[in-house]
Amino acid sequence: MIKRVISVMIGAAVLSTFSVLADPAKSAKQAKGVTEYRQAIFKLVKSNVGALGAMNKGAIPFNVETMQTNSMRLEQLSLMLEDYFATDTTGFDVKTEALDKIWGNQADFKDKIAALTAAANNLNKVAKGGDTSQFKPAIGQVFKSCKGCHDNYKED
Amino acid sequence: MIKRVISVMIGAAVLSTFSVLADPAKSAKQAKGVTEYRQAIFKLVKSNVGALGAMNKGAIPFNVETMQTNSMRLEQLSLMLEDYFATDTTGFDVKTEALDKIWGNQADFKDKIAALTAAANNLNKVAKGGDTSQFKPAIGQVFKSCKGCHDNYKED
Repeated sequence: MIKRVISVMIGAAVLSTFSVLADPAKSAKQAKGVTEYRQAIFKLVKSNVGALGAMNKGAIPFNVETMQTNSMRLEQLSLMLEDYFATDTTGFDVKTEALDKIWGNQADFKDKIAALTAAANNLNKVAKGGDTSQFKPAIGQVFKSCKGCHDNYKED
Repeated sequence: MIKRVISVMIGAAVLSTFSVLADPAKSAKQAKGVTEYRQAIFKLVKSNVGALGAMNKGAIPFNVETMQTNSMRLEQLSLMLEDYFATDTTGFDVKTEALDKIWGNQADFKDKIAALTAAANNLNKVAKGGDTSQFKPAIGQVFKSCKGCHDNYKED
């Protein structure tokens, strides 16, 4: 059995290891706290992706340093994401854009997170390599991975 | 001149490089957005630190895997922190616990972030090394670095 570590703590800090199936939230308070953590990590994802989108559209010039920094951070955040979805909040009325079916399709959801991790990793390599012809497709791959998940698991 | 990359984007995504001095926010909207990003990163810091505190108090058993994972993520987040304070929001009425003097004491504030980075890095090494006698002091160092900054730069 694969075990991972919950790094999402609520209140007085609860820790447990758990199987690949998400654990249901045990209280409305926990569900709310977990949801806020999820939203926090996506805020940071957004803050790193923002510049990439602007570069892709030509709204700002391509900047290799930004591509390197933001793709590195995006990969780090992406590698945290799974743990932040380790608690199934569908049993409680939380204010969230995360669709319930995330917790019914864990394997697919994790594949979609892995696609973001891979795209961020690739962008970082491309930025370090400096092949400017690859900048746009590598950024595009990041957005494709975002959309691939949002289309299925995020409220419109 | 040292230049860094702003990875904090607001709305349609703005990117710029900037000197070691923070740039003032240009609008109430930007100040609000920047503040929300700051709060998001501290939420993630908290979610990683929570388990360490619980272990330190004996509320949960010491778990080396958790120490490794959470200290690694804490270090990653700590290395992002400086950029998330790159915009001086003191000119706007934002709802924040970050004290204005952060932006008047940039060098000291950055030293305090560096102390967190170092403490997280050390905890990771200790966890990997497995010398259980060092677990508590290494976790204590993380909390000392949190407090060292909060005492000076966070609203009580």
